[in-house]
Amino acid sequence: MVDVALARISDPLGEGQRVFTKVYADAARRVADHADVLAGLGIESPPLAGLPVSIKDLFDVKGEATTAGSRLLSEAPPALQDAEVVRRLRRAGAAIIGKTNMTEFAFSGLGLNPHYGTPLNAWDRKAKRIPGGSSSGAAISVTDGMAVAAVGTDTGGSCRIPAALNGIVGMKPTACSVPLTGVLPLSASYDSVGPLAASVDTCALLYGVLSGTASDARPVGPRGLSLAVVKNYVLEQLDGVVARTYEAALRRLAAAGVQIQEISIPVLNDLPMLFEGGGVVAAQAYSWHRNLLMANEAAYDPRVSIRIKRGEAMPAHAYVEIQHHRRRFVHGWSQQIRAFDAVVMPTVPLVAPRMVELADDGEYGRVNLLMLRNPTVINALDGCAISLPCHEKGAAPVGLMVACRHGRDWDLLEIARALEEVLARE
Amino acid sequence: MVDVALARISDPLGEGQRVFTKVYADAARRVADHADVLAGLGIESPPLAGLPVSIKDLFDVKGEATTAGSRLLSEAPPALQDAEVVRRLRRAGAAIIGKTNMTEFAFSGLGLNPHYGTPLNAWDRKAKRIPGGSSSGAAISVTDGMAVAAVGTDTGGSCRIPAALNGIVGMKPTACSVPLTGVLPLSASYDSVGPLAASVDTCALLYGVLSGTASDARPVGPRGLSLAVVKNYVLEQLDGVVARTYEAALRRLAAAGVQIQEISIPVLNDLPMLFEGGGVVAAQAYSWHRNLLMANEAAYDPRVSIRIKRGEAMPAHAYVEIQHHRRRFVHGWSQQIRAFDAVVMPTVPLVAPRMVELADDGEYGRVNLLMLRNPTVINALDGCAISLPCHEKGAAPVGLMVACRHGRDWDLLEIARALEEVLARE
Repeated sequence: MVDVALARISDPLGEGQRVFTKVYADAARRVADHADVLAGLGIESPPLAGLPVSIKDLFDVKGEATTAGSRLLSEAPPALQDAEVVRRLRRAGAAIIGKTNMTEFAFSGLGLNPHYGTPLNAWDRKAKRIPGGSSSGAAISVTDGMAVAAVGTDTGGSCRIPAALNGIVGMKPTACSVPLTGVLPLSASYDSVGPLAASVDTCALLYGVLSGTASDARPVGPRGLSLAVVKNYVLEQLDGVVARTYEAALRRLAAAGVQIQEISIPVLNDLPMLFEGGGVVAAQAYSWHRNLLMANEAAYDPRVSIRIKRGEAMPAHAYVEIQHHRRRFVHGWSQQIRAFDAVVMPTVPLVAPRMVELADDGEYGRVNLLMLRNPTVINALDGCAISLPCHEKGAAPVGLMVACRHGRDWDLLEIARALEEVLARE
Repeated sequence: MVDVALARISDPLGEGQRVFTKVYADAARRVADHADVLAGLGIESPPLAGLPVSIKDLFDVKGEATTAGSRLLSEAPPALQDAEVVRRLRRAGAAIIGKTNMTEFAFSGLGLNPHYGTPLNAWDRKAKRIPGGSSSGAAISVTDGMAVAAVGTDTGGSCRIPAALNGIVGMKPTACSVPLTGVLPLSASYDSVGPLAASVDTCALLYGVLSGTASDARPVGPRGLSLAVVKNYVLEQLDGVVARTYEAALRRLAAAGVQIQEISIPVLNDLPMLFEGGGVVAAQAYSWHRNLLMANEAAYDPRVSIRIKRGEAMPAHAYVEIQHHRRRFVHGWSQQIRAFDAVVMPTVPLVAPRMVELADDGEYGRVNLLMLRNPTVINALDGCAISLPCHEKGAAPVGLMVACRHGRDWDLLEIARALEEVLARE
C-alpha cells in the first residue's frame, strides 16, 4: 500500500506535487517493511500497521520546521518533538507518508494556496474545481490513493468541507478529545484535530488512535434512529444540486426507517454575532501572528492576512461578550436537541466551484463565508460532526453532516456508520 | 447563637449598621427554632443546623435585588432564585443572618464603601483602621460575633485580605470547586467563593457545604510537613510588624518540626504582565459593567469605576496573550513547587492602615495594589489558599498564607489545621 501511495504521489500527471509539501518515502517504506516482517512472524499488528497516512502541514515533526502552508516559516526553528498525534500515529504503526498542503495557516475553507499550488478537486478534474480547505491536500491524498487516511484540523470546517466537496468522509471530533500539543494553532477556542478517509470505519479507526480511546457506544441500525433536520439558517442559499441531492438522501434515510423530524433552532439565527469582527478566532489568530505580521506581512497570502488582521481591532470586552454569547448559544441549542440522537444538515450549501470563479477577492470572500457557515455551527458548539457523501456515484459530491453533542464522538461514529450504509446503497 | 448574633447586629454602639446591608432577623430565628425542635426530638442535625452565617451582598437571594455594595442596583430586577451556594447553606441548616457590606462590585482589596459606610477593623478600633476587602462586612461579622461564619468571594484576595487584617481565617478555594451560579460576577476567570471564620475547623465545615464534598485528605501533623517559603516578589515592601511577626511564626513552625525551605520562584517576577492594563479581570469586569457605566457612571464609587474602566481600552489580542502568559506562569510555578506539601508567604505586606491615611486617591491606589499583590498570586494560579492568623494575642493582626495547587482544597485544610495548632500556641 505504501508503494502504491508513493507511486501515485510521484506520478508527474497526478496531483502529488500540489498535495504534499513534504514526502517521507524512505521512512514510510521502512515502517511498512517492518510491519510486513512482524505480520510474517505472526506477531499481532498495531491498529494502523503499515497503513499510509498523511498529516496536514501544521503538525510538528521532530527536527523539521512546521510551515502550515506558508513560506514565512520555512526557516523557523525545527520542532523539538513530534506533535502528540504524530506520536500516537507512529505508535499505532502508521506509515506517515507526507505532510499535506493546506490553506496558509488554515484560515479559509476553500483550500487555495498561492505558495505551493492548489490541489485540484477529485471530481470533474478537467474543470479545475477547488478542493475545499483548509485541509485541501488531506482530502486529495485520500481521493487519489496517496494515503488510506489523512489527519487534518478543523477550526470552522477544515476537515468536513474538503470531505464534502470531494465525496469522502471527514470528521471534526470534540476539540478536547484529541490533543493539540505540537499543532500550529489558529484558534485555541475552536481548533480540533480529525481524520478524513473513504469510509466511516476508517475514520473510526483513526479517531481511536488520535484520541487514545476505544468505542464506548452501542452499535445502532438506521431503524428508529431519531434525527433532527435543521430547517433554518443552514438551508439558505443552497444551490440546486445540493438541495436536490440532500432532499433525496433524507428520503432514502426515511425509507430505511430513520425518524426524521424537521426543526427550527431560533438561537442559530443569532450565530453571526459570534463572528462579528472576525470573532474570537480572528482575535486569537491575530495574537499568534502579530509579530510575524509586523516582521513580514508581504510574505502572507493576502486573502489570509486580511482575515487574521480583523482580529487586531477587536476590544477585549467584545471578546469577553462573544464568549458569553457562545455559552448562551450552546445552552439554547442543547435544550432543543437533547431528545434526538443526532442533528443533520448539508455540510456545505454549494458544490465545488471552479477555481477561475474565485479570481475576484469579493467572490472569494462570499463563497468562503458560505462554505464555512454550516460546519462552523458545530465548532461554535464544540460538538462533534461527520460529513458523509450522499450523492449518486459519479455525480457532483454533496456532503450530509451529522452532529452530536460535546463528547459523544463514538455515538456519532456509530450513527454515521448506520447512515452511511443507507446512503451508499445504489 | 442567632439571638446573640442579632443582638450584636442591632447594638447601636457596634458596627452592625455598616457590616450588613440587609438583616434576616425573623427568618434566621425561625431556622434556629426549627433546629432546636429537631435537636430536642433527637433527630440528627444537618452540619450547619441553626448556625448564624452571613453572606456577602453579591449572592442572589430569591425575590431580592442583588446590589453588590452599590446604589445603582437597588432597583434591579429581583433574583428569580437563590444562588447555588445559598441553597446549599439553607439545605445544610444554616440560619442566614444577613447580607454583608463590601467594596462596591468587589473591585478593591481595602473594603471602603462610600454608599453604606465602612465597617471598622476589629483591632485597635478607636484608630479607625480599614477592614480590608472586598469582603469587609464578612470579616467583621465574624470578629464581632454577628455570625459564626461568613461566605465571601475572592477574585484577588477578597476573603484572605480582610481575614489577615482582622486576625481570623479566610479561604480562597479552587475556583471551580464552589459553583458561581447566582453570584454577581467580577471576573469569570478569577472569581471564587470561600468562607471566613475564627478557625480552620469552621472554614472546613463551611467549605464542605459550599463545595458539596467531604474531606478526601489524610490528617497530618506539623512534624515532617514540607513547606516552600517564597523569598522573591512576595516579601517586597513588608512593614516592620508584618516582617517580624511572619519571621517569628516561621521559627515557631520550624521548632514544631515543620520542614521549611526558602525558594525563589523566577516566574513570579513576570506576574505583573498578567495585570497590565488591568488584566483579564478589568476586561471581564468592563464587559459586565459597560451598559451600566454608560447609563449611570456617576452613581459608582469613582475609585471602583476607574478600575473597571481600565478594561475598556484593552485589545482582544492582548487579552488572549495574557491568558497564554497565565498558562506559562501556572506551568512554571507547578514545576518548581511540586516537591512541597504547600507554599507559604505573608498574606499581605502591611498591617491595616487607618482610614484617614487613604484619603488621597494616589495613596489609596498604592496601598490597594500592595494588599492585592500576594493573594492574587494564588488566583492567577487558580490554586487554593488560606490565611491564618500568626500574631500574638492582642498584637496587630498578621496573616500567614498557606497555598496548595489546583483542586487540593482538602489537603490544604488539613495542613492549615496542623499549622494553626502551632501558631495558636501561646
